[in-house]
Amino acid sequence: MSSIFTKIISGEIPSYKIAEDEKHYAFLDINPAAKGHTLCIPKREVDYFFDLKPNEIGELTKFSQKVARAIDRSLKPIRTGVIVEGMEVPHAHIHLIPIYKETQAFSLGKKVEVTEDGMRKLAQQIRQKVEL
Amino acid sequence: MSSIFTKIISGEIPSYKIAEDEKHYAFLDINPAAKGHTLCIPKREVDYFFDLKPNEIGELTKFSQKVARAIDRSLKPIRTGVIVEGMEVPHAHIHLIPIYKETQAFSLGKKVEVTEDGMRKLAQQIRQKVEL
Repeated sequence: MSSIFTKIISGEIPSYKIAEDEKHYAFLDINPAAKGHTLCIPKREVDYFFDLKPNEIGELTKFSQKVARAIDRSLKPIRTGVIVEGMEVPHAHIHLIPIYKETQAFSLGKKVEVTEDGMRKLAQQIRQKVEL
Repeated sequence: MSSIFTKIISGEIPSYKIAEDEKHYAFLDINPAAKGHTLCIPKREVDYFFDLKPNEIGELTKFSQKVARAIDRSLKPIRTGVIVEGMEVPHAHIHLIPIYKETQAFSLGKKVEVTEDGMRKLAQQIRQKVEL
């Protein structure tokens, strides 16, 4: 069975898309730890991040860097942090979480409420700054 | 002034070393969120992770993968997770945190007490499984 993320890539499940290239896809996390919290995934369905091939893990990180740059340029956090935990969805993913305050708790889990309209606007803001 | 991590690389400040290659260094975090919590750093001193050059960020991630593999082989967690936050030391670093239980809180900060002797043994166990 396809992972929920594979269904997002195919469009079967809708997402607030941020960026896509041949091998990767980025979209807003619907349980954001901060505004603009984005997931970057490889299109190839691999459960455990460190089971990706060395080249794949390198390329996924470089793709994520481009997305993080776009978050930084559009939303102007202090910086953007990274979490890879992967105990929920069996499809490797990098969480990009903008850090807006030094005291911001840095962990997963929904910490901000964003309306659907807010999510659309955030995605648009970030997307406009992506340079693949 | 050199960062504390640059002093660790040079040996000016001691560390529980895990692995080293031409451009990277890995050592145990002295405030472990879990047993075997390891930091992977580039030898080049860059504050913000996403300010590393794309090639550097790819290589650092691939180096970290080798270290994560060694953690997995030696300490047998469910898997090893990643955090990059970087609000404390101005020298980019990847936290590798072994996840031993599904319920383990996944965030930074000292969560386990490990004696000096315990740290030495953990470092040795992981180091023996590193394949660079």
